[in-house]
Amino acid sequence: MDKFEELKWELQGSEYYDAELILFDKRIDKRKNPRTQKVLDRLVLESVDWVNIVALDPKNRSLMVRQFRFGVGYVTLETPGGMVDPGEQSLDSAKRELLEETGFASDEWSYLGAVEPNPAFHNHLCHHWLAQNIYKKGAQLLGEGEAIQIEFLSQKEITAAVQGGELKHALALSALSRVFNLWDEKV
Amino acid sequence: MDKFEELKWELQGSEYYDAELILFDKRIDKRKNPRTQKVLDRLVLESVDWVNIVALDPKNRSLMVRQFRFGVGYVTLETPGGMVDPGEQSLDSAKRELLEETGFASDEWSYLGAVEPNPAFHNHLCHHWLAQNIYKKGAQLLGEGEAIQIEFLSQKEITAAVQGGELKHALALSALSRVFNLWDEKV
Repeated sequence: MDKFEELKWELQGSEYYDAELILFDKRIDKRKNPRTQKVLDRLVLESVDWVNIVALDPKNRSLMVRQFRFGVGYVTLETPGGMVDPGEQSLDSAKRELLEETGFASDEWSYLGAVEPNPAFHNHLCHHWLAQNIYKKGAQLLGEGEAIQIEFLSQKEITAAVQGGELKHALALSALSRVFNLWDEKV
Repeated sequence: MDKFEELKWELQGSEYYDAELILFDKRIDKRKNPRTQKVLDRLVLESVDWVNIVALDPKNRSLMVRQFRFGVGYVTLETPGGMVDPGEQSLDSAKRELLEETGFASDEWSYLGAVEPNPAFHNHLCHHWLAQNIYKKGAQLLGEGEAIQIEFLSQKEITAAVQGGELKHALALSALSRVFNLWDEKV
């Protein structure tokens, strides 16, 4: 990114706050605007990386999860996923989260790439994984912060849920869009 | 969402904290897990909705922005966008942000739908808008927190930037994926 050096905001200092954010560590960086030279406080919510999984059964139906989401305050339809534990590889996190949230496993994993959930204030990436020919391995192993139902949806049902607005979690859509064509081209 | 009533975490109380999060108001809800009946503190980062824009010139090249992003600490390639001011309609926000960030305007706007940036802890939506046949209207009007360069990319260049990992802002990808086919189907 050196070719955009003139856009870089030079770091003038960082400070951590005890903000009890549960999921994040709050950091405030002092950054100098390269356009105005003015120094501003900028928020960073630090966390580990995340993973989510497009998990397909032998019929290419996608294993989805429904759970109450605290930000929006309603039950969402999503792909399985979670956080990468410190020191863990994202593939191992994907295998662990799929098994814990759904009881399913796979022997066929492909990396679909990573996205920045929001580079404006998050420092983490979300890694997308594809699991094919999944099979039932055990029971759900849910944490105390989880209550999850699982459901298999065909590509047609996924597309209908996306286009109808029932499935609108940006990171789930991001993963699914690398496997299925969810939208018709507009131009 | 009444059919998933059994997944709902009943609200036991909410409290606001002065956490100086700049972009957000921090709220902690006490929610009762329907599976275990245990009450837990859950984080909500409240904010207004956001918008972003796929802005196409008469040749269907996409007007993109480059800026230093404080979360990741490097210069990103994204669609123009920003926050919906209180009381503002998202279309008006889209028109305003496009003009402020790039100096361009359009008379042809179409709504592409909304996504949840992260329903686990955000309460807001990001609204995607398509602007076609954009034209230069004035100079950039940047805020003190902004330093932005603009750039036109063809669909081929967008796809290369996405598949090569240069463009990986989840919300920009979400908007672009509703206009262009960015990925080949995997299954």
